[in-house]
Amino acid sequence: MQILEVNKLTNFKHLNLFSTKYKDKIGNIKSWIFASRLDSPNVIKKASNSSKIDYQNEDNSKDLRINSTDINKPNAVVIVPFHLDYQKLVIIKEFRVPLGNYQYGFPAGLMDRGEDIEQTAARELKEETGLEIVSIIKKSPTIYSSSGMTDESISLVYATCKGEPSIKWNEESEDITVIMVSPKEGEILLANSEIKFDVKSWIVLSIFAQTGKI
Amino acid sequence: MQILEVNKLTNFKHLNLFSTKYKDKIGNIKSWIFASRLDSPNVIKKASNSSKIDYQNEDNSKDLRINSTDINKPNAVVIVPFHLDYQKLVIIKEFRVPLGNYQYGFPAGLMDRGEDIEQTAARELKEETGLEIVSIIKKSPTIYSSSGMTDESISLVYATCKGEPSIKWNEESEDITVIMVSPKEGEILLANSEIKFDVKSWIVLSIFAQTGKI
Repeated sequence: MQILEVNKLTNFKHLNLFSTKYKDKIGNIKSWIFASRLDSPNVIKKASNSSKIDYQNEDNSKDLRINSTDINKPNAVVIVPFHLDYQKLVIIKEFRVPLGNYQYGFPAGLMDRGEDIEQTAARELKEETGLEIVSIIKKSPTIYSSSGMTDESISLVYATCKGEPSIKWNEESEDITVIMVSPKEGEILLANSEIKFDVKSWIVLSIFAQTGKI
Repeated sequence: MQILEVNKLTNFKHLNLFSTKYKDKIGNIKSWIFASRLDSPNVIKKASNSSKIDYQNEDNSKDLRINSTDINKPNAVVIVPFHLDYQKLVIIKEFRVPLGNYQYGFPAGLMDRGEDIEQTAARELKEETGLEIVSIIKKSPTIYSSSGMTDESISLVYATCKGEPSIKWNEESEDITVIMVSPKEGEILLANSEIKFDVKSWIVLSIFAQTGKI
């Protein structure tokens, strides 16, 4: 497989569509459209004919939040917080505009320029839940959310935390409820067909409900 | 939070951008852009002023693969296959155009019209790995890949399987290697910093490597 060219199709601030021409394994030229938060997705560096890259309407209002210069840096950090005093997993119920609904998931956010993964994790956990990280249990490498439709990447940070849940550091556009979950309570949430879960929280919570471990 | 209006911004066959206007919790009017494979994302049904919905360049060449009429049906099915004879987890190494690179993940695919989740799981597992489902271990509800940027939804189907791995049913555009993984082999893969993992496969493989269970 070979990437031949990448074209930016739209010119929005936070999210854009890109089209790719690639040669498949039997030599056919095919096209693929994907979404990216990056102004210059990493796949562009793979294009054999980079002179053909056509940036329509080159945008001057770059999104400062995304740093695409480090190819290995994830776009965002997702925290799996385990509260030491309560011995519970921390889940947030949050309004998600693309769903027009509330979703249960983990605290998460885009990396600010200059931050490392641990700093983003600490900042987002505080902003979204009021809690503070005690220590990092484990940290994934850069992993991909849904690589058929987007190059979006995250690092998943499992951390112990402390403090009292609070939404006073939420941004205005955030509508969040902090929920502390025991394995038994996790089981009850998972059995509730009204609840919409994020993929990561569903997998981790299913294991936690079954084994008490994350 | 209240969704006021949703506008389709692009007019491609498989993936489009939509803009949303919504009222945040303190009454400010905000906007949000997201990507969707659906011609008519479910959030549109939440818009308070549906007459304001402006479909630019209404498209007649609908993508037949996505059925947006059933609000609870996932867009895609992802299979977590456990091979009974080998007692190994099945992972695929697949070229992903948006990454311009190979990624390790689970077999997956969009639901065809008229299929149920089990049928999609069986078809995609066969196409991508040559293997056949023996039985379904568990099945997630409709869960969301990354609901800040897309309404993409999946069902995660854990299944036992049988047969010899083969790529002869791959589509031309697919470039897949089937990999059977023991817990010990999983540990080695996870320690290899050259490998790009999908989020779901990283979480499940981490647990499998640690506990021998999925």
